[in-house]
Amino acid sequence: MPNFSIGVDLGGTNLRIAAVDEHGHLLEKITLGTRVALGKDHVIDRMCEAVRGLSGKHESAGSLHGIGIGVPGIIDMKTGMLRESPNLPGWAGVPVRAEIEHRLGTRVILENDANAAALGESWLGAARDADDMAMLTLGTGVGGGLVLGRRIWHGMTGMAGEFGHITVDPEGVPCPCGNRGCLERYASATAIVRMARESIASGAAPGLSRAASSDPEFSAKAVYNLAIQGDEEAKKIFRRVGHALGMALADLVNALNLPMYVVGGGVSSAWEAFAPVVFEELRRRSMVYAATAPPSGTADGQGASAQVEPGGPTTTIVTLALLGSDAGLYGAARLPMMSGT
Amino acid sequence: MPNFSIGVDLGGTNLRIAAVDEHGHLLEKITLGTRVALGKDHVIDRMCEAVRGLSGKHESAGSLHGIGIGVPGIIDMKTGMLRESPNLPGWAGVPVRAEIEHRLGTRVILENDANAAALGESWLGAARDADDMAMLTLGTGVGGGLVLGRRIWHGMTGMAGEFGHITVDPEGVPCPCGNRGCLERYASATAIVRMARESIASGAAPGLSRAASSDPEFSAKAVYNLAIQGDEEAKKIFRRVGHALGMALADLVNALNLPMYVVGGGVSSAWEAFAPVVFEELRRRSMVYAATAPPSGTADGQGASAQVEPGGPTTTIVTLALLGSDAGLYGAARLPMMSGT
Repeated sequence: MPNFSIGVDLGGTNLRIAAVDEHGHLLEKITLGTRVALGKDHVIDRMCEAVRGLSGKHESAGSLHGIGIGVPGIIDMKTGMLRESPNLPGWAGVPVRAEIEHRLGTRVILENDANAAALGESWLGAARDADDMAMLTLGTGVGGGLVLGRRIWHGMTGMAGEFGHITVDPEGVPCPCGNRGCLERYASATAIVRMARESIASGAAPGLSRAASSDPEFSAKAVYNLAIQGDEEAKKIFRRVGHALGMALADLVNALNLPMYVVGGGVSSAWEAFAPVVFEELRRRSMVYAATAPPSGTADGQGASAQVEPGGPTTTIVTLALLGSDAGLYGAARLPMMSGT
Repeated sequence: MPNFSIGVDLGGTNLRIAAVDEHGHLLEKITLGTRVALGKDHVIDRMCEAVRGLSGKHESAGSLHGIGIGVPGIIDMKTGMLRESPNLPGWAGVPVRAEIEHRLGTRVILENDANAAALGESWLGAARDADDMAMLTLGTGVGGGLVLGRRIWHGMTGMAGEFGHITVDPEGVPCPCGNRGCLERYASATAIVRMARESIASGAAPGLSRAASSDPEFSAKAVYNLAIQGDEEAKKIFRRVGHALGMALADLVNALNLPMYVVGGGVSSAWEAFAPVVFEELRRRSMVYAATAPPSGTADGQGASAQVEPGGPTTTIVTLALLGSDAGLYGAARLPMMSGT
């Protein structure tokens, strides 16, 4: 009987808990709303209750490796404290790991959600054949995770992988991080809506304007729907997404020369609307990509992704994530299975 | 008696060969001109002769670990072939490693010169207390090297560390690599001279203009001399160097969260003219740097560089290289001492 662990994806909207065995099979998944407004004690209590329930239920089938928890925000890996967490208001400065361990009476592993997603895609998803990979999660913001030798690269203080704050336009849109022109300002769902509203305000985007006024919840998805219907202004916005993402990826390819870069998150469902520009930028801006791109005749992002090349990979693959919103959940479950973590 | 190895720094101008013991002590160093015009066979013959001479001479004092050679250009780590080498014309496509091994009758380790310099600074220089570091070498071009866990991070095909081609100005100066606005176009000696000539052409730089017309070998050093004498246009050029370098470093800090970034190469002797802008850009553009910068009261780039912090480092240090032009030589000598390389 394979051993299993419990993975938790603690998002600002959903709280998901899964039991996953060491072969990556899902034993059971629970999805709860994260009732952030009721305060962190309430959220942590419900989470611990669900963790106890799931682990008790499956303990007859195998022994529990441990508990891994992905949380949005920057975690101090040494103290288990949340440094910053825009999606969990009031949690900054809270010793989250200690509070959970106290309730459960056992050790848990806390991880940044974008890092957990990268580990999930590395374990079971698009990068399962690559030892080294980077993942960009294009969601409300842009998260990043770096996996080297199949382990999350935390850097010195657990803050590595902040790819959303790579500068793609030195004098561009101000970012709450203090910089200007961060990738996140051009490649997140929030950025797509902002760029759409800017187009509408310029008066040159009748299609977007109609969509926005008829839809009180005007979203990145609505902009995408217009783009696939051929609306020029909407298409232009996704080209800007592609330019920004391609530029940031080119920097990463030049700096790290990894075999695999995975693009996930909600915005990645609009992949076909921006991927061509991403590959154009990559070929133009990264000589390392140009030297290692999939052979012509193969589409970019395809090709060697599923084969293991003898002597190790020699092709740079940039491709879509495979696990959708479960990447972080699987990654969180993977954490306790890795020795020494 | 400590064992030793032979390091070679095969530059476009100088060919240097050193015997270095495993504690990092220099036993002997030979500097020869690289007579590139006489062809690669001539250069390789002289190099092998010097290697044999040095190793024979010191073999009485300890046994030879091996031979490491730093070469400019991109090396195919699998075949030992030089892919591209602007400073060694006619060497591209040559199986350099095989030719050297054939002459010496023993295995050698070939490494990119910027990677070797990073390993040298990591072993004995500015980053000797850090397990993980990146180095940028600001010379004729801008080279880069990444050392993770005290080993060179080669990436998939040996092309990692191309920090000189990080985009710092998306619509900026074209680069031979195919991109526009690469760091190298703003922070190399070549770039400094180009920017000076642009200032002169604009008619607004009388100081630079006088210096250029009186000096047939007008160089980055001449621009620096004017800058320290207070020439505004010359100072402006070094501020541009600082902006570009700070921006590229901010991307690296956000992506990798390393404890140590080392700046070397000839241009780094003008450090005081551009370092203040580098740190300004870092604080503004990298939240990871802002969160981990040396405490106020300590100068940026100083502080924890020499101390080992309990529980590992928590401060990001950006500092000058210590080994000067010997970094690559020591790094090359280090290569054979590392098991599994």
